[in-house]
Amino acid sequence: MSSKVNHFNSKLSEELSENSIRAAWERSTKNQTANNKQIVNLSLGNPSDLPPKLFFHYLGKLTKAGSKERFLGYMDNAGYIETRHAIARDLSNLNFFSKAINENYIVLTCGASGGINCTLHSLLNPLDEVILLSPYFVDYPKYILNHKGAVKTIKPKPPFFDIDIYQIEKTINKKTKAIIINSPNNPTGKIYSTERLKKLSNLLKNKSKSVGHPIFIISDEVYREIVYPPARFFSPVSFYSNSIMVYSFSKSLNIPGERIGYVAINPEAENANLLFNLIKLSNRTLGFTNAPAIGQKIIPRLLPLRMRINDYQKKRDILIKTLKESGFEFQEPEGAFYLFVKKPIDGNKFAELLEKIGLIVVDSDPFGIKGYFRIAFCYDMEIIKKGCKKLFDLGEEVKKIKRRSSGF
Amino acid sequence: MSSKVNHFNSKLSEELSENSIRAAWERSTKNQTANNKQIVNLSLGNPSDLPPKLFFHYLGKLTKAGSKERFLGYMDNAGYIETRHAIARDLSNLNFFSKAINENYIVLTCGASGGINCTLHSLLNPLDEVILLSPYFVDYPKYILNHKGAVKTIKPKPPFFDIDIYQIEKTINKKTKAIIINSPNNPTGKIYSTERLKKLSNLLKNKSKSVGHPIFIISDEVYREIVYPPARFFSPVSFYSNSIMVYSFSKSLNIPGERIGYVAINPEAENANLLFNLIKLSNRTLGFTNAPAIGQKIIPRLLPLRMRINDYQKKRDILIKTLKESGFEFQEPEGAFYLFVKKPIDGNKFAELLEKIGLIVVDSDPFGIKGYFRIAFCYDMEIIKKGCKKLFDLGEEVKKIKRRSSGF
Repeated sequence: MSSKVNHFNSKLSEELSENSIRAAWERSTKNQTANNKQIVNLSLGNPSDLPPKLFFHYLGKLTKAGSKERFLGYMDNAGYIETRHAIARDLSNLNFFSKAINENYIVLTCGASGGINCTLHSLLNPLDEVILLSPYFVDYPKYILNHKGAVKTIKPKPPFFDIDIYQIEKTINKKTKAIIINSPNNPTGKIYSTERLKKLSNLLKNKSKSVGHPIFIISDEVYREIVYPPARFFSPVSFYSNSIMVYSFSKSLNIPGERIGYVAINPEAENANLLFNLIKLSNRTLGFTNAPAIGQKIIPRLLPLRMRINDYQKKRDILIKTLKESGFEFQEPEGAFYLFVKKPIDGNKFAELLEKIGLIVVDSDPFGIKGYFRIAFCYDMEIIKKGCKKLFDLGEEVKKIKRRSSGF
Repeated sequence: MSSKVNHFNSKLSEELSENSIRAAWERSTKNQTANNKQIVNLSLGNPSDLPPKLFFHYLGKLTKAGSKERFLGYMDNAGYIETRHAIARDLSNLNFFSKAINENYIVLTCGASGGINCTLHSLLNPLDEVILLSPYFVDYPKYILNHKGAVKTIKPKPPFFDIDIYQIEKTINKKTKAIIINSPNNPTGKIYSTERLKKLSNLLKNKSKSVGHPIFIISDEVYREIVYPPARFFSPVSFYSNSIMVYSFSKSLNIPGERIGYVAINPEAENANLLFNLIKLSNRTLGFTNAPAIGQKIIPRLLPLRMRINDYQKKRDILIKTLKESGFEFQEPEGAFYLFVKKPIDGNKFAELLEKIGLIVVDSDPFGIKGYFRIAFCYDMEIIKKGCKKLFDLGEEVKKIKRRSSGF
């Protein structure tokens, strides 16, 4: 990176030099090549499985039809109506909202990240506050700042990383516009209980009245299909009316990179129709224009598919076993494909150990909490097994250091 | 639209009620259905032709390969390296830049609109100024405001809509960070001459020195293949080093809606490598993440295709003939697929006439100039011919009104 004075966006230039998931990933990609795959990389949440066969079946059909009949083209910025209709029907069948939803509340977006940006752009006036529960997805704070909002972080109470209702209550004021909830959570794998979400819902209902405007829940549900029994997923949109569901097909269909997701506005939200129009307009004026057309055309056919999580569960279980045997402290993830583990020794020493051993994981700092690291287990079993070996070695090294420092 | 008080983004709520291309288009889509296709809609720049057969050929190949080998997945935020490499080679072969370019200066984006947003986000500090030449693409001002910039509009000198070097010179100051050039132009069809672009380039070189930082040219070249001989396209990036090319495949491959384009940074730009990293980071933090993967995989195969503009030329020519015969004032477009025509009578009366006759075109107000309307001719010939009939009727009605008002 150039250290010369530059005249570009100075905040962004600072961010560029920050530690990031991607930087670690890109470095390791290079290193892996250089070191003949000695390094194991469990850093990025990039599903390694193939998309379902049906995805390619319908892509093939589309290919045949497309050479005869035009399907590509600019469209309503909310997306193709038949895709929105199919999604609305699916959500209604699954009773996500307390009322049936239709296509007039659904905007197809460039993934969940596009959807969250369009939502925040629609909700926020300058310096409006958005509450995040740390640890959170690393880019949430940037999304809020993109739209001139202010980030209010609620520190978690480890080890459970549950929703701290009391802290949220203290944080809400007249500038509070929304809270982002991500369950199953990246990076902890935590799923919030229906009781806790209802408590949050009650608090927000009361607070919305007292501040004189609705405080929205933005529910990022990209991992909602990846749930390990007996855990169950609950969406806050089913009992809180001023809520917006954000979803992506990247995980459930293993099509990350194709950028297809949606925003579903609770039909019972205040001014829901206006909000739909604002999110749709944001999709245009932020430069997304619309979610990619090819993905939109295929999605309706794939909605009936239900995800199989057996493989993820196996990978989770062998990692849990290894981590436990090696003495690491962590909560067992109830969903998603991450393990969030306490660093057993001082951070700098631990980073040195990781490098020595050749294991790439993600430091917890960018998630808004210190002293942890994240392991992603959406990789091939072969890589997970190599990762377990590395974690075992790591545990041994940690034990040596601890023995030394305690004077043995 | 709800007129109730709302607590959403108030600026965006205002924009929503503004007149817009999309609103006209959506209204007309509904009306066309209601009125049994009596209305002719020439408002949206949405190419009606099919993509090339090769597009579907390679989509088919990808479909077959994809069910066996994984190709979807998160990637470097700049895009697949092989796609960037192929584009760089193509640009180098065509001598767009004075120096050969490589993949380290290319970021694949969600269309040109995604590319411009990532570029502006990388360049601008709050209140930095960006110069627009009106008439301009309707969303440019919004893109600048998205990234906290200030819009400085240069009013054109009709009827030629050329670059007004003198006005630009007067407008530049220490806050000026960039100018957006769109040639062939939407909405005028103007192509700037190499002489004029060189004058602009010299001015910007001198001004960059005097203000103490580079003033960038952002060259939006989405229509550069659609050029009517003897006109020729020149890119300012070939002789101005602090320049950024923005491109989309929507027009050249007839794949609007698939959201695939790129930003190419002039390798001789100041801090070009840093700028690449900032644009790549913006692609992530603005929520685009990456350009859609399927489009990226197909593009390299289609780069050798050169666009055929015969059909556009025919449509342009019959519209020009009709407009001339009906006494409308306009410049013949040298490129793109738009005609920009002076309103022959008072704007309100003219709008009434359009509605009476059943022709949908776009008012020039959102392009930053009053008193004109835009006709898009990227529609099927059948629709163009119906449009000509409507324009003829319009001309007759205008003559009647003029006769009446001149006392005959």
